[in-house]
Amino acid sequence: MIVVMESNATEEQISHMVERVESLGLRAHVIHGTERTVIAAIGDKREYTRESLKSGPGVADVVPILAPYKVASLEVKTHPTQLKVRDLVLGGGTVGIIAGPCSVESEEQIMKTAKAVKAAGATALRGGAFKPRTSPYSFQGLKEEGLKLLATAREETGLAVVTEVMAPDEVELVARYADVLQIGARNMQNYRLLEAVGKVDRAVLLKRGASATIDELLLAAEYVLNEGNANVALCERGIRTFETHTRFTLPLATVPYLQRKTHLPVVIDPSHGTGDRALVASMAKAAIAAGADGIMVEVHPDPETAMSDGYQTLDFDEFSSMMRDLARVAEAVDKKL
Amino acid sequence: MIVVMESNATEEQISHMVERVESLGLRAHVIHGTERTVIAAIGDKREYTRESLKSGPGVADVVPILAPYKVASLEVKTHPTQLKVRDLVLGGGTVGIIAGPCSVESEEQIMKTAKAVKAAGATALRGGAFKPRTSPYSFQGLKEEGLKLLATAREETGLAVVTEVMAPDEVELVARYADVLQIGARNMQNYRLLEAVGKVDRAVLLKRGASATIDELLLAAEYVLNEGNANVALCERGIRTFETHTRFTLPLATVPYLQRKTHLPVVIDPSHGTGDRALVASMAKAAIAAGADGIMVEVHPDPETAMSDGYQTLDFDEFSSMMRDLARVAEAVDKKL
Amino acid sequence: MIVVMESNATEEQISHMVERVESLGLRAHVIHGTERTVIAAIGDKREYTRESLKSGPGVADVVPILAPYKVASLEVKTHPTQLKVRDLVLGGGTVGIIAGPCSVESEEQIMKTAKAVKAAGATALRGGAFKPRTSPYSFQGLKEEGLKLLATAREETGLAVVTEVMAPDEVELVARYADVLQIGARNMQNYRLLEAVGKVDRAVLLKRGASATIDELLLAAEYVLNEGNANVALCERGIRTFETHTRFTLPLATVPYLQRKTHLPVVIDPSHGTGDRALVASMAKAAIAAGADGIMVEVHPDPETAMSDGYQTLDFDEFSSMMRDLARVAEAVDKKL
Amino acid sequence: MIVVMESNATEEQISHMVERVESLGLRAHVIHGTERTVIAAIGDKREYTRESLKSGPGVADVVPILAPYKVASLEVKTHPTQLKVRDLVLGGGTVGIIAGPCSVESEEQIMKTAKAVKAAGATALRGGAFKPRTSPYSFQGLKEEGLKLLATAREETGLAVVTEVMAPDEVELVARYADVLQIGARNMQNYRLLEAVGKVDRAVLLKRGASATIDELLLAAEYVLNEGNANVALCERGIRTFETHTRFTLPLATVPYLQRKTHLPVVIDPSHGTGDRALVASMAKAAIAAGADGIMVEVHPDPETAMSDGYQTLDFDEFSSMMRDLARVAEAVDKKL
Repeated sequence: MIVVMESNATEEQISHMVERVESLGLRAHVIHGTERTVIAAIGDKREYTRESLKSGPGVADVVPILAPYKVASLEVKTHPTQLKVRDLVLGGGTVGIIAGPCSVESEEQIMKTAKAVKAAGATALRGGAFKPRTSPYSFQGLKEEGLKLLATAREETGLAVVTEVMAPDEVELVARYADVLQIGARNMQNYRLLEAVGKVDRAVLLKRGASATIDELLLAAEYVLNEGNANVALCERGIRTFETHTRFTLPLATVPYLQRKTHLPVVIDPSHGTGDRALVASMAKAAIAAGADGIMVEVHPDPETAMSDGYQTLDFDEFSSMMRDLARVAEAVDKKL
Repeated sequence: MIVVMESNATEEQISHMVERVESLGLRAHVIHGTERTVIAAIGDKREYTRESLKSGPGVADVVPILAPYKVASLEVKTHPTQLKVRDLVLGGGTVGIIAGPCSVESEEQIMKTAKAVKAAGATALRGGAFKPRTSPYSFQGLKEEGLKLLATAREETGLAVVTEVMAPDEVELVARYADVLQIGARNMQNYRLLEAVGKVDRAVLLKRGASATIDELLLAAEYVLNEGNANVALCERGIRTFETHTRFTLPLATVPYLQRKTHLPVVIDPSHGTGDRALVASMAKAAIAAGADGIMVEVHPDPETAMSDGYQTLDFDEFSSMMRDLARVAEAVDKKL
Repeated sequence: MIVVMESNATEEQISHMVERVESLGLRAHVIHGTERTVIAAIGDKREYTRESLKSGPGVADVVPILAPYKVASLEVKTHPTQLKVRDLVLGGGTVGIIAGPCSVESEEQIMKTAKAVKAAGATALRGGAFKPRTSPYSFQGLKEEGLKLLATAREETGLAVVTEVMAPDEVELVARYADVLQIGARNMQNYRLLEAVGKVDRAVLLKRGASATIDELLLAAEYVLNEGNANVALCERGIRTFETHTRFTLPLATVPYLQRKTHLPVVIDPSHGTGDRALVASMAKAAIAAGADGIMVEVHPDPETAMSDGYQTLDFDEFSSMMRDLARVAEAVDKKL
Repeated sequence: MIVVMESNATEEQISHMVERVESLGLRAHVIHGTERTVIAAIGDKREYTRESLKSGPGVADVVPILAPYKVASLEVKTHPTQLKVRDLVLGGGTVGIIAGPCSVESEEQIMKTAKAVKAAGATALRGGAFKPRTSPYSFQGLKEEGLKLLATAREETGLAVVTEVMAPDEVELVARYADVLQIGARNMQNYRLLEAVGKVDRAVLLKRGASATIDELLLAAEYVLNEGNANVALCERGIRTFETHTRFTLPLATVPYLQRKTHLPVVIDPSHGTGDRALVASMAKAAIAAGADGIMVEVHPDPETAMSDGYQTLDFDEFSSMMRDLARVAEAVDKKL
């Protein structure tokens, strides 16, 4: 950590900060520049330390040198993690395809979709049973009934089941039916929930919050890893920016950037990332070209009558056609679906 | 709602959409423009309706006309709500002042702070017992012990206690000690939590998420109001933008804007809104001049040794000095602290 | 255009607005909804009209139905434009590759780079002679001397020359040496400059401003097209968001979105879009998979000693390697470099 | 400057970077931390140096310690600059009020407005003669005819004239009529224009670009100051964020933050900053409470028929009423209008 003093900091303030650094168990190293003095605080970084030093007298800024996350870091585990759940494989040269409706609506809907996406090459089925909705007046999901339908679809098709869990006290119930527990973007910093999914024997798909930084995403993953659950994949689903022509802005540079910082696999969700059915296939192709380890996409038998997210949902033909294109792009970057 | 068709939409697509509109219980009114056709869908707005129409064939866009929230709306309750809890009054010409440390750390710390902020004119005491922290390695709060210390401070000073609750199954415990339940920015869309605080007899201070739109904030409030709890205040604490010289960007236009849309009181948090102790007082003054119904600010006996947020925390002298300034600004806009 | 009245608008206000709409040469069509009245204003859209109506009494909002741009629109020219300048082809199944240093620094530097990028398959040479620099203390370019070096490199290699022009009174000079006039992101709304390049017989590469909306980008293009210059390509080079791990956020969804709105070719600049040499190749691949018509990338014999932008610049080996990968991805989406 | 090496950087890479630092005329000071090595590069900062070091082998990041601007800095000139032009005073305890229409439209319009704002207490008249418009189809201003009308209004009222200049070759013409040359937000990084206004004997009001950082704003000011023109005021007029309920997001924390970094006066434009007439007065009050040295606001005899920006423009009564409120708030913070 580097403590940058104000240009008019007094010798007394500098001495005070050196003492503070040392009282926190770090070694202080003072460097007098031409206009400012900085103090290098040497030792293993702790978040508290930085906050604390930042409020000292005469301090202009405190610049961290080490990343705030550890277990998720590529410095700790130097080989990429390949996540395998039934047929779903994320990473290690394989691009996993997670497809299905936004919400589970009925047995017919989910069975038809499961069979269609399986036939087209998907390896996991997504579908919401507990739905976080912006408005209390929107459809909130079929709850446990929806989970049962997902489990039935898995029996028929062998697809791994990916579904969202919204509250700590629902984790056990959802884990009974699901293979992968999804943490939605709005819950990325719901720490009680992160701790709860860290304690069960299920893989976790952690979506990036719409305004979360990469450090915050990796620290959220760290909450899960810390509880002993190592099966975590990260999902970029778009950030909130000034752009309104898409629902969110999908920053694909997240893929290669994360792959240089963490060993966890990275999934892209082009459905939420664009909010526009006409853009989904292009962005899925781009995601694979950028190196994504998985794609999560919304598919429904009849998007127009879907109970949620229809405008960003592909129908079966669109999905099959996209899958053929994705296979070609994957091959061009030496990967396979 | 206005369904805007693509410029090359066919007559068949237009007829199809008219039928869709009618099948959703709305009246359809077609208007042929010089370049495009639009269909006005007349009737009470429902969120699902919009999503559903948006995925129809030949549809370019669906423009909502009515706001998605109802109970929080100034159209439903035309007079501003004044929220009163013990000495804390938010709205109706009074600016409530909520002050205290980021985290409750010890009996001495909280008692000293409570007395100091009371003496300077604060009407409520803030302090975190359950702390949502970005990093799992940071201090997570004293939990129930912290709540007890807050209750003791209330006994001594009469200040209302404002503290955060993080999970649905902790609501009952926190409500036992607190007067106002704070929902943090990271939990603004934690719907299970919103429902839970909607069911208890405690006021709720709902903080805006760092990337939440105003509609999303009011819909989150609607989750609480819907459960029967009408004592809700909103808190602007800054949004995430490209600016890095402040921790967040504090958009004070939220104050007059919200006051034209909702009857709920609006509180400003200049501590999180700036993340910089040197900017807090200026922004508190500005907030009152903009019409805020309350100010929430971090105060600590010794910010430099605070266990969290020290860099944005005032000491007792700074707080007293700010309070004198705030009283003058309040008077200049015909309000009182 | 749809004029949305406040829910409490009076009959008098509604009548007034109907008259206003008609006085602007539009036809007014009143629709009484269940809670609000809206007035459809029918006729060819004009920007002034909207602004003007928005300030009327009792008006809540004015929603445009037609896009504000015309000549750039796919509705006016329904086939994509293929831009050809010497060997550079943008669009129509061909991905043009524009490569070269950020700044022209010396004859040796530009000649070596031109030959290297030509050998690896580039079709145009980029290089700045007039450099817009954030700081007045930074290197400002070799000016006309730089233009001459670019022209020499073109003679040797046949590559088209792409270079930036910064002021209206420099257009003539730059046009004397360049094949494609680049308008930088900071000048996207420098209207005098747009008008000036619209009057010369040179292709124009218009970069999107870091906070420009898509409508603003297309309206900027419209300034050029309006003067009679139809050879315009658009370039996405990243937008400014809260993300700091990359220099800008590169939103590749711009590619398919623009291709649904405009006939102009779309180029992606992954160098500025990421600001990180380690991410450039991944994003270039992703851009082609997303459907980009061209790629613009910074290349230098020795990035470490480059006078500007070295941290986002590829060396010759990195560029050659990337080109081999790009050719494979292009083939996978049925295109060629 | 601090060069942060990757955690796996080799001794060779470290030595290489030490040599690089020294070859740039800086002193290198190596610090071996527990996980990483950093190199402090001591000496006066130069922008090029940072860029250059950032692309070195094994370098993770380069952290600047000194601000990139100099002449604008409070470290160089430690007392705030008070800018005086005729009756307009910005800073030093006086809040200057610049008011007038978006565009000069006619003699009657500008004369009526000048007299009305003068009577209400304004000290300068604003009005656009050369208008930068997003669309080429919008009203582009009366040009020189508009400048003449402004000069006439000055003769009648004594108000200082503030008007925008858009291109280097128009500076001389505009300077012939105006007292203060305004650089619009879209031209904040139009460097030729900045250099041109730096060479004339007129005060400059430099507006912050909608996505410019504070460093970029101060570096733009530096371009003007560098040419010898010391009469520069900065204007915050809102930044582009994800918020759409206001035209831009007006971050008032810019006021106290800038006042800690620069000696230049800071003006707030609540008209563009909100884009909503109903929010202008609240934000003007807030700006003064936050410490602004000036307010720039749009006023028109009949906003509904204004040729531009009517929706954010006050009429005479609204302006007078606001001025009475502003005087009270100014007094509450020990200032005067």
